[in-house]
Amino acid sequence: MVCTVQMYEKPKLDRPVLIEGLPGIGFVANISALHLIRELDAKRFAEIRSSSFQDFAITAKNGEARFPINELYYHKGRMKERDLIILYGNTQALTTFGQYELSGQILDIAQELGCNYVITLGGLRVRERANTPKLYCTASDPQTLDKTLSLGAKKIRGQIFGLAGLLVGLGKLRGMRGFCLLAETPGFYPDVSAAREVLNAVCKVLNLEVDLSRLDVAAEATRGILESFGMAPPLKEEETKKSRLRWLI
Amino acid sequence: MVCTVQMYEKPKLDRPVLIEGLPGIGFVANISALHLIRELDAKRFAEIRSSSFQDFAITAKNGEARFPINELYYHKGRMKERDLIILYGNTQALTTFGQYELSGQILDIAQELGCNYVITLGGLRVRERANTPKLYCTASDPQTLDKTLSLGAKKIRGQIFGLAGLLVGLGKLRGMRGFCLLAETPGFYPDVSAAREVLNAVCKVLNLEVDLSRLDVAAEATRGILESFGMAPPLKEEETKKSRLRWLI
Amino acid sequence: MVCTVQMYEKPKLDRPVLIEGLPGIGFVANISALHLIRELDAKRFAEIRSSSFQDFAITAKNGEARFPINELYYHKGRMKERDLIILYGNTQALTTFGQYELSGQILDIAQELGCNYVITLGGLRVRERANTPKLYCTASDPQTLDKTLSLGAKKIRGQIFGLAGLLVGLGKLRGMRGFCLLAETPGFYPDVSAAREVLNAVCKVLNLEVDLSRLDVAAEATRGILESFGMAPPLKEEETKKSRLRWLI
Amino acid sequence: MVCTVQMYEKPKLDRPVLIEGLPGIGFVANISALHLIRELDAKRFAEIRSSSFQDFAITAKNGEARFPINELYYHKGRMKERDLIILYGNTQALTTFGQYELSGQILDIAQELGCNYVITLGGLRVRERANTPKLYCTASDPQTLDKTLSLGAKKIRGQIFGLAGLLVGLGKLRGMRGFCLLAETPGFYPDVSAAREVLNAVCKVLNLEVDLSRLDVAAEATRGILESFGMAPPLKEEETKKSRLRWLI
Repeated sequence: MVCTVQMYEKPKLDRPVLIEGLPGIGFVANISALHLIRELDAKRFAEIRSSSFQDFAITAKNGEARFPINELYYHKGRMKERDLIILYGNTQALTTFGQYELSGQILDIAQELGCNYVITLGGLRVRERANTPKLYCTASDPQTLDKTLSLGAKKIRGQIFGLAGLLVGLGKLRGMRGFCLLAETPGFYPDVSAAREVLNAVCKVLNLEVDLSRLDVAAEATRGILESFGMAPPLKEEETKKSRLRWLI
Repeated sequence: MVCTVQMYEKPKLDRPVLIEGLPGIGFVANISALHLIRELDAKRFAEIRSSSFQDFAITAKNGEARFPINELYYHKGRMKERDLIILYGNTQALTTFGQYELSGQILDIAQELGCNYVITLGGLRVRERANTPKLYCTASDPQTLDKTLSLGAKKIRGQIFGLAGLLVGLGKLRGMRGFCLLAETPGFYPDVSAAREVLNAVCKVLNLEVDLSRLDVAAEATRGILESFGMAPPLKEEETKKSRLRWLI
Repeated sequence: MVCTVQMYEKPKLDRPVLIEGLPGIGFVANISALHLIRELDAKRFAEIRSSSFQDFAITAKNGEARFPINELYYHKGRMKERDLIILYGNTQALTTFGQYELSGQILDIAQELGCNYVITLGGLRVRERANTPKLYCTASDPQTLDKTLSLGAKKIRGQIFGLAGLLVGLGKLRGMRGFCLLAETPGFYPDVSAAREVLNAVCKVLNLEVDLSRLDVAAEATRGILESFGMAPPLKEEETKKSRLRWLI
Repeated sequence: MVCTVQMYEKPKLDRPVLIEGLPGIGFVANISALHLIRELDAKRFAEIRSSSFQDFAITAKNGEARFPINELYYHKGRMKERDLIILYGNTQALTTFGQYELSGQILDIAQELGCNYVITLGGLRVRERANTPKLYCTASDPQTLDKTLSLGAKKIRGQIFGLAGLLVGLGKLRGMRGFCLLAETPGFYPDVSAAREVLNAVCKVLNLEVDLSRLDVAAEATRGILESFGMAPPLKEEETKKSRLRWLI
């Protein structure tokens, strides 16, 4: 099995950009993707489950069962906007092997829909909370890197774990361009400020007009999902270390 | 290999309900399934082995070798009863990946026999033993949840590990409905009281007429199987923690 | 890949008995198999490598490289003797999954050559060294168990790890009979006395005439193989515990 | 997926020799391969990624993203030189299983290009740094071993971890000859002296004329790659132990 995909619709898109929004440090990508989906009224067209996700069910506040899952949404660009594929979910795969398989599956779908550009988001852990979190980036190639640096981001030095790193890397092997954009965050809770910085930059580069005033609602929803996964935020640093996943390091 | 299935018979069933009865907290599901199989004289029609089961043989009291295995039984409903597929076994898979593969295999077989409804059972660990253990539930959808709540169960808050969680979750992705029913239990030994509460509710929802007076015989048999696996009950809490499996947490 | 088989010959055999002789507790099976191969002048007809073996090369005394491997030998029975397939090797698979795959591969080959009977050997760890180690057994079915008990073996209570357990178990699912025979051993070094008891019983049940006077030569060779694997015997108990494999428990 | 190969060219080679140059103890093979590639102006013809590599991206000094990868280069022999396939990369696979799959993939490609000879390189950890590191070797067969010993190498006693061991071992199962050549090294940093000894011997056996005066440039580049992987050399012994990979033991 490894990955099971349920396609609800095969949207017709014009060179869509894939935006990654899975849980990770500070839940920056997760908040950002959820906010984009809500504000753009993006439509879910695929669900992905993996044998490398957690083998448990979780329960929502209303008592219904929820499950570890990744979802793909699309947004047909209005006016100057680019078409988008937004990757959203409540988990990443638990193993290195599972992360590679999941990335491959997502890129297969994205490529079939004409995608050749990947943007991944995330948090860069820092000790102190900043009023205006700084942005950091890396990219698949010098041209894309220059474009990303022009958004006001600095070059990252270090490793980018999880799908934020893999999607750009495995995409490059397929001839796709892409960049990874991280915002500074202490990382122990869904970080609205960090998500705001990242979203501002993403909207700029994609000519998206998105109201960011309701960003805290997306963060609150993310907090609820975390709780149902048994990761009650705000997590204290010691607790995080005990049960941390690699993509939450 | 991963999973190997030996089918002894392909029964003709009318929209059978799949009931999960594998080892887990308090062995609630395990006792319940064994009791149903015996009282209904359900017939074994398939054996499943997985490369993710334990790689050892165990010995029965008579000296014969036994092996980690899952079995499927069927019961043709009498009168108003629904047809049943009962999943019984002496283990779950040892890895997350194995649990997903096992669930997929079981759902494949169940779906081929016309099943579109899954009931999973289990224990919910509590500190103190209750005279009448309370029931907790979650379900695939609001309608099924309402039906389950009407049995006197409360909504679960938390994770449901193992096949009790996965079968409902992966079933939902295939368009199957289902619920998970847990009874309070301290969880360190095969818990007859918890199994009784669960079975009472299951019989009610499925119009099954099953005598529960010999439930302790099924518990005793479960105890014997545990011993042969080197998990001598009653387990003390400390011992459990050392060697616990995730689906026994 | 998982398992790669190199077949050098496809021998014509008459209902051969598969004898397992891989490393394990006290190296009882390993010594026994090597001795049988040498005394019967059994012929190697297949090599098996698995992605679940150790990922290293080892060096022999003469400087040549050696590798983790399993081998199959055959012996055409003389007079009243049964035809044999002897499984020999310097390792078992390192993971549960690998053990199942390896067992399946070996049974595939054995079945294709007409085998429907499996004998697995091993050591049963005891604290004190006995002058005449006692034999213990389990079997696939009551009839085979009775036959094995008549050799003077007692019933085992407990788990039988590794291929000694799996080959009998997975063989049974394929309709093969078989038994597992263990001799008492402290288990920290290649144990000639335990191997002698096991071989005596095996020769009796298979009408094999094998001289056991050179058994210590096989034990010495086994010791040399262990050293090249970095497991210098005699191992002290503490050292064993640090680096023990599950099939050496 | 497991391994994904991107072939840029299928070179026509005459019985090429495969030279392994992946990271390992003292980065002896890694420096040697990089130096050969640069001095011989070898051409990259294939990239290999594996689901068993690290699931992260790394960043180069210029800010561009880099990824865990293995690469194959070829060199058409000039004059008396043999044709070469050089395996270079910034990682080995993280699991035993992954190492086997990676080795099988590389040997598949090499065999298809006519290769039947494998040379693997590496470091042999010693306590003290030697002025002229000694060479050690093992080989697939007595004839190849004699040839390697004649280079002034001594016989290794012990295990050879990683692809340095596996490529010779799995190659032998395919009928390929080969040897493994290790130089003494303390092992905590890219070791130019050890690489020089190894390269001298390799050049001698393959009639390669390669200038070794710029070997420290290759070592410096290797150091930069390590840093981007979060392994800042010179590593202190204690730090190495905490985060060591099996092929860096």
